[in-house]
Amino acid sequence: MSDTVKYLLDEKDMPTHWYNIMADLPEPMAPPLHPGTGQPIGPDDLAPLFPMELIKQEMSTEREIEIPEEVRDIFRQWRPTPLYRARRLEKALDTPAKIYYKYEGVSPAGSHKPNTAIPQAYYNKAEGITKLATETGAGQWGSSLAFAGALFGMEIDVYMVKVSFGQKPYRKALMESYGARCVASPSNETNAGRAILADHPDSNGSLGIAISEAVEIAATRDDTKYALGSVLNHVLMHQTIVGQECMKQMDMAGDYPDVIVGCTGGGSNFGGIAFPYLGEKLRGGKDTKFIAVEPAACPTLTRGQFAYDFGDTGHLTPLVKMHTLGSTFIPPGFHSGGLRYHGMAPQVSHVQDLGLIESKAYHQTTCFEAGVKFARAEGILPAPEANHAVRGAIDEALRCKEEGKSETILFNLCGHGHFDMQAYMDYFGGNLQDLDYDEGELAMALAGLPSVAAE
Amino acid sequence: MSDTVKYLLDEKDMPTHWYNIMADLPEPMAPPLHPGTGQPIGPDDLAPLFPMELIKQEMSTEREIEIPEEVRDIFRQWRPTPLYRARRLEKALDTPAKIYYKYEGVSPAGSHKPNTAIPQAYYNKAEGITKLATETGAGQWGSSLAFAGALFGMEIDVYMVKVSFGQKPYRKALMESYGARCVASPSNETNAGRAILADHPDSNGSLGIAISEAVEIAATRDDTKYALGSVLNHVLMHQTIVGQECMKQMDMAGDYPDVIVGCTGGGSNFGGIAFPYLGEKLRGGKDTKFIAVEPAACPTLTRGQFAYDFGDTGHLTPLVKMHTLGSTFIPPGFHSGGLRYHGMAPQVSHVQDLGLIESKAYHQTTCFEAGVKFARAEGILPAPEANHAVRGAIDEALRCKEEGKSETILFNLCGHGHFDMQAYMDYFGGNLQDLDYDEGELAMALAGLPSVAAE
Repeated sequence: MSDTVKYLLDEKDMPTHWYNIMADLPEPMAPPLHPGTGQPIGPDDLAPLFPMELIKQEMSTEREIEIPEEVRDIFRQWRPTPLYRARRLEKALDTPAKIYYKYEGVSPAGSHKPNTAIPQAYYNKAEGITKLATETGAGQWGSSLAFAGALFGMEIDVYMVKVSFGQKPYRKALMESYGARCVASPSNETNAGRAILADHPDSNGSLGIAISEAVEIAATRDDTKYALGSVLNHVLMHQTIVGQECMKQMDMAGDYPDVIVGCTGGGSNFGGIAFPYLGEKLRGGKDTKFIAVEPAACPTLTRGQFAYDFGDTGHLTPLVKMHTLGSTFIPPGFHSGGLRYHGMAPQVSHVQDLGLIESKAYHQTTCFEAGVKFARAEGILPAPEANHAVRGAIDEALRCKEEGKSETILFNLCGHGHFDMQAYMDYFGGNLQDLDYDEGELAMALAGLPSVAAE
Repeated sequence: MSDTVKYLLDEKDMPTHWYNIMADLPEPMAPPLHPGTGQPIGPDDLAPLFPMELIKQEMSTEREIEIPEEVRDIFRQWRPTPLYRARRLEKALDTPAKIYYKYEGVSPAGSHKPNTAIPQAYYNKAEGITKLATETGAGQWGSSLAFAGALFGMEIDVYMVKVSFGQKPYRKALMESYGARCVASPSNETNAGRAILADHPDSNGSLGIAISEAVEIAATRDDTKYALGSVLNHVLMHQTIVGQECMKQMDMAGDYPDVIVGCTGGGSNFGGIAFPYLGEKLRGGKDTKFIAVEPAACPTLTRGQFAYDFGDTGHLTPLVKMHTLGSTFIPPGFHSGGLRYHGMAPQVSHVQDLGLIESKAYHQTTCFEAGVKFARAEGILPAPEANHAVRGAIDEALRCKEEGKSETILFNLCGHGHFDMQAYMDYFGGNLQDLDYDEGELAMALAGLPSVAAE
């Protein structure tokens, strides 16, 4: 029997529409609120930050929204991405489970993030915007938007969380190779950054702070808008191209997932692979189990509160109802910079609150152990973020072994780890600690959640 | 008109045989000689270093040799690789030329090197070998053999040129992720290494030295053989899967290359894309121009002598007739570690001597400039080695613009630059110099070429 089993779609089978989970939710989501009035926001409230077409997508309840031909044209460079059956990993685990993984690391930026970077740049460009400001953690999002900026001839300013900026100078170099500007956050370029630095000159930064900086820049300049790499409805929707391709590829394999695993930071990677299947389940389809895997050091879904909160530390964003650790919560500096966010996509939070998905938290060393096992079996070295999904999938496969079940497990290998070798060096050198957040700090951050009359 | 034009082959169209240029050479090559006797070597002389099947391939004159099914099975994970028409780059250059590039960076190791690492590991394993020793420059070859070792459950020892070992700790980490051991060369583990260190304790190393170390290890241990990432006939033949795929993909495009460009260090990347076309030309096919692009700081084809020389600095290998700068020549520490070799594949040297190919040398900054231009147009950041091919292809496209010609240019984008970000940082920081070799040193190295009676 062949070891390598790859399912490749023809270009003509690349999805032409994004899937919008809003159309199939059994209960509507709580609306985003204006922090001043406590009232639901409208499109105009978001207009300083986003182009109108993206605002419409953010608020849409239509099941399908067409992917513009110009966007699909760019996607064709690396999409459809391959789906693999991990036979060599199955053998190494000696499991009766069937493990499939979707591989998004084949994009020029090395991760799934261009799936939303390209359309975001496209819609902004179409509305005359020449510059985008954004934040980035590990740098996967920043370099993806930089890539999109190069293709559309737009200026890109990236505020990169300072701890990652220091850990990953090569991500900055990649952004610069694409012509973008990358600044350590908190920076002196914004009021939000200066306020943090005044109180904490040595601040390591956080995604919440970097978002404040980028939002401030966008809100105060006419030619500039803001782009977010996860969390928002339209971003999760853009990632559903991943899950939709999986559906066709699993069909080719003659199989259907019993379990789907994705890692969660802001939620877009998980939503991208899970939501097309969840929608099918909600419309009466098969009963798939969904597992969101997050870092134990930033356990938004497993330890956070489902409440209205700000998306950023500087409190410039609307209030959204989500699983949150509190917008002042600063997670410890573990290696999956893309997962160090205090909040969670409202859509992912909502479906967890409805009991439609499960979540699970892991410390980082066990994730790296899983990633190395995966690399030695399958040849692809995952990004630290993706190692969380690998750990989750392997544990499901080991459960199947224990229970003697031949379940079908699908996970999203959202990026390669070639920019994360310092983390692997630390792991091999025994210098990787299982960091924990401070319980007192978490309690304080949760106590500081805004009180919202509308709740 | 669509911007992204990708030509993807079906798996079933992946070549089943390697192409052997030996069958079509208009004049036979000079044989490798035993350094002691000056007589042509036979299979037994190579038996301590290589498994018999690879020795047979090294000496074969058959036009086609079958790729084992087990090897093709592994290749299917990322092969056939895409061929792209670089329309965005053409626009950026405003050239009437059509530029195509084959992209080998989609392999798990990020370069074309697994094309030979996998079969080499396979044939060794089949003959009971449990361990392979090798050298590596920039680390692309070492990490590819490490990847192959992980899949076949073999021990891999990599002697990495010390200057690259220092510049690229992350390449070492990748090898370790695959379970290989990586040692800075010259090392204290071999007589060859110790001899160099005794004379030059601060030696930066060179591919020639690292080869000596790996060859010595293989020659003195029963369970261990040697694997080389370029130069040898069988290695170049393994890379012809690249050119053969290009032929089918260019057929899909309804086009045929007027010019083929590849970068050359040891010659396998260039041979891989050029030889299937050169063979066709020699059998009466179209008149394609072949351009080998090399670093000006290690100008083997443009400044070297076509003479018998050792493949390594320690003089443990047979003598082969090739373009060489002399086995004692140590190139300066420029950033394309994969191109820092004193010699050149005998096959590539032979066809240049016959006037069948051209060669060209570039300094490194102009290559990085070309690489950044390429990245901003096409989205893929090339490895520094590949930047030489990009520079060569862009210059051909600019020549076409000057001459008003719409020629078809094909080049091999042999790997991505995600492990080479320090080089890009140096380039952006203005810290990248156009290094030159020392003329006196070169003269001395050439004067030291072994005298061979048989010549």
